[in-house]
Amino acid sequence: MTLGELARQLGCRLEGDATTPITKVAGIEQANAGDVTFVDNPKYVPRLATTRASAVIAGEDIAVPPGATFAVLRSRTPYVDFARAVGLFMPSSAPAKGVDKLSAVAPDATIGADVSIAPFVTVGPGASVGARTILYPHVTVGAGASIGEDCVIHSQCSIRERALVGNRVILHDGVVVGSEGFGFAKQADGTHLKIPQAAGVVIEDDVEIGANSTIDRPAVGETRIAAGTKIDNLVHIAHGVSIGRRVLLCAQVGVSGSAVVEDDVILAGQVGVAGHLRIGKGAMATAQSGIPNSVEAGEYVSGSPAIPHKDWLKASAVYRQLPALRQRIAELERQLAELTEKLKE
Amino acid sequence: MTLGELARQLGCRLEGDATTPITKVAGIEQANAGDVTFVDNPKYVPRLATTRASAVIAGEDIAVPPGATFAVLRSRTPYVDFARAVGLFMPSSAPAKGVDKLSAVAPDATIGADVSIAPFVTVGPGASVGARTILYPHVTVGAGASIGEDCVIHSQCSIRERALVGNRVILHDGVVVGSEGFGFAKQADGTHLKIPQAAGVVIEDDVEIGANSTIDRPAVGETRIAAGTKIDNLVHIAHGVSIGRRVLLCAQVGVSGSAVVEDDVILAGQVGVAGHLRIGKGAMATAQSGIPNSVEAGEYVSGSPAIPHKDWLKASAVYRQLPALRQRIAELERQLAELTEKLKE
Amino acid sequence: MTLGELARQLGCRLEGDATTPITKVAGIEQANAGDVTFVDNPKYVPRLATTRASAVIAGEDIAVPPGATFAVLRSRTPYVDFARAVGLFMPSSAPAKGVDKLSAVAPDATIGADVSIAPFVTVGPGASVGARTILYPHVTVGAGASIGEDCVIHSQCSIRERALVGNRVILHDGVVVGSEGFGFAKQADGTHLKIPQAAGVVIEDDVEIGANSTIDRPAVGETRIAAGTKIDNLVHIAHGVSIGRRVLLCAQVGVSGSAVVEDDVILAGQVGVAGHLRIGKGAMATAQSGIPNSVEAGEYVSGSPAIPHKDWLKASAVYRQLPALRQRIAELERQLAELTEKLKE
Repeated sequence: MTLGELARQLGCRLEGDATTPITKVAGIEQANAGDVTFVDNPKYVPRLATTRASAVIAGEDIAVPPGATFAVLRSRTPYVDFARAVGLFMPSSAPAKGVDKLSAVAPDATIGADVSIAPFVTVGPGASVGARTILYPHVTVGAGASIGEDCVIHSQCSIRERALVGNRVILHDGVVVGSEGFGFAKQADGTHLKIPQAAGVVIEDDVEIGANSTIDRPAVGETRIAAGTKIDNLVHIAHGVSIGRRVLLCAQVGVSGSAVVEDDVILAGQVGVAGHLRIGKGAMATAQSGIPNSVEAGEYVSGSPAIPHKDWLKASAVYRQLPALRQRIAELERQLAELTEKLKE
Repeated sequence: MTLGELARQLGCRLEGDATTPITKVAGIEQANAGDVTFVDNPKYVPRLATTRASAVIAGEDIAVPPGATFAVLRSRTPYVDFARAVGLFMPSSAPAKGVDKLSAVAPDATIGADVSIAPFVTVGPGASVGARTILYPHVTVGAGASIGEDCVIHSQCSIRERALVGNRVILHDGVVVGSEGFGFAKQADGTHLKIPQAAGVVIEDDVEIGANSTIDRPAVGETRIAAGTKIDNLVHIAHGVSIGRRVLLCAQVGVSGSAVVEDDVILAGQVGVAGHLRIGKGAMATAQSGIPNSVEAGEYVSGSPAIPHKDWLKASAVYRQLPALRQRIAELERQLAELTEKLKE
Repeated sequence: MTLGELARQLGCRLEGDATTPITKVAGIEQANAGDVTFVDNPKYVPRLATTRASAVIAGEDIAVPPGATFAVLRSRTPYVDFARAVGLFMPSSAPAKGVDKLSAVAPDATIGADVSIAPFVTVGPGASVGARTILYPHVTVGAGASIGEDCVIHSQCSIRERALVGNRVILHDGVVVGSEGFGFAKQADGTHLKIPQAAGVVIEDDVEIGANSTIDRPAVGETRIAAGTKIDNLVHIAHGVSIGRRVLLCAQVGVSGSAVVEDDVILAGQVGVAGHLRIGKGAMATAQSGIPNSVEAGEYVSGSPAIPHKDWLKASAVYRQLPALRQRIAELERQLAELTEKLKE
């Protein structure tokens, strides 16, 4: 692609030679001739002096260093336009359109136009797959499940019976949607009676779920991941959980049964959330936080058990000094006892 | 189903109209006409006043609020009968009985009566699958592995070579039984020599294992999950671990090599257990606990490293005050020094 | 196998009857007649007095207890020779050599000599599989991906498009290599724009990765796992991470985006590593550590947030006493106030 064509597709103003060929996107330090890179974080602006990229996507206010040979694609949202550029140069790896003859699609399943169904995919009775959706090899779509349009379901995903998946949903390899929640009733003899977990599980539009994450369904009610939420790898969402819109759940997060996570919440890696609580809109938790109680909207928490982030920053800094503090307390006790003794005399 | 029929099947005493049609089970707040719900936790009894359910499973001592229109199914174990009711209304989604022609079953494998083997299942040489067991699509049963009767093995499970799985075992999607343990011998040149891990792995009767959990096998000895134990999603059981009967392991728990977890232990989500230790019968650990040493039977621990739960509750409450405590110690030192100085004069 | 033959294959000096038949390897306490065991850790030497094994692999300095009936295989590296013995007695469970007719291999894929490709494996266009490599059932090899020689790829692994896997790599069941990293750009309306993640992912020679672990690929640059590194189950490696040589990552570890983990690092179970930092050569972290900042080469850290292990050991011992320490501070304040008051009089 020429630089002029790239500028046109991104809607950027070009400062430089429109005929320069661009072949791929690269990081500012790894880029070579033929590459387009970007700069957004002011921390990386000095690296413009040494980049070998042929073009840089940058804001209007970024000065080109003297002697620079790269062209500039002026953008109001450099990171977003960089993301779009990555997409423009990405090779496609989707399976061919159509239903592969090595798949097993139930006769009464509804298959939309222009779908790609790879070898060894199963689509159960009464299930439906929307137009242009791609099912990679070894995907299982259970009986009565419904997948919307323009979805990408990677290899080895299991979409269990009657699960509902919206449009433009991306599930990475090994994701399970609609596995049975961990629900048992303890019986008099100490054994655990299974509470069958067969109620609804809904993945709304524009959700993306990372590799090997699992979304359970409940006994009654539903588990729901609302529109635009993004979930990383190896995340566990228990039965009856409600995750709001535009939520970000980083890798290895676990959310316990019936918890409600409101819109725009961000949970960093390995955070654990207890059951039957509410995390208010826009709240955030740092990595490995353990959240035992509800969190107010907009709160920022850390630690296990989680406390306000500011308090945690201060307390965790003191933690390391605990042995010294104990020492100082003992020394105070000694001195005070000595003083008291002396005064008695 | 009529309410009378439901009462008969559950063995409950009916207070109300036996001809009322019941179509599904629902939560007390979500229920509508035609639904049966339940109340067990006293916290939820007030919600009886507003439920729209047609019938409620409740204990003998629960009073019906004035003006209520619902019928009551009197039960000695309302939660258990609720669980059974869920099962009665659950649609079946099992693949058809028989061996699908798109599966790959070794000629010398032993296949019991009335099994369901879905498309794209593999059953290796010398393996056996017991009567009425269901293998969903993409299950792999390794050479010489044995699966008992009435098991349900969901999609994408891998049961490795020579693994032994008992009767009435449920494995959710993506479970791995018998992967090779993480065992290496460090060599003089710093590289890690693999200790082959090919010994036994046993899943006893009535065990249930959640989606994408992994159960490793050891080099010598065996890994064993004893009867009636329930394991949630994304749990890691290392090589040579012994898990007792009726144990509950919540999501994302990890148990390190050769640990022994005795009967009736409960480990909450994201708990980590170190290797070569023993967790005594009936012990419990709260979420995210890190257990470095053996735990006595019946103990209740929390924190990382784990300490008695009562101590942890108190200590974690003080944690947040650490900066203030340090301040108070500094103030005491200042005052005491001042006083000592004054007394010298 | 006779003991003489075993001694020859291991290169050990035999003290005992070379004609004794040996049928398997076992732990020192579980071993019976016909078994070979080993002793390396001095802690286990006393158990030689009661072992029922027919032969013991042991160092030159280990004394045989009086009355012992077992033979001794003298070794300079008993644990390593034990590992090799386990391998000698391990039954093979590899699928038959050749390409199973129930697989789906693209016509232009390159398939090496003596490969084993099991039923329901897919190999995409332009992909290559090296000589003697084994692909178990339900493995997906994406378009343009490359797998080296002598690899073992277990069931349900997904090797995504264009991923590069070296020689002698072992991937356990359900591993995902090359899933798309968790990268989004927040847009003005609060939604998250996907940054396509289609750059390189490289698994070098002699790497082993445990069941259901996931290795993401980045938008630009690459994710790399260097030679000889061993990764346990359910581990998450984010986009753009670089893992050095001979690293050990225990189960459920998570490494965030663009982190660099240098050679010979050891991270115990459930450790979390933040993004864009460096863990220096040979550093270690105990289980559940949370590493927010770079760690120097050779450092040993613990806790969340991680601090030097020695400090953490002392501080965590004091943690439990926090309520008592607070009490002592209050008591000091009371006494000092009383004393000050008294002196005023």
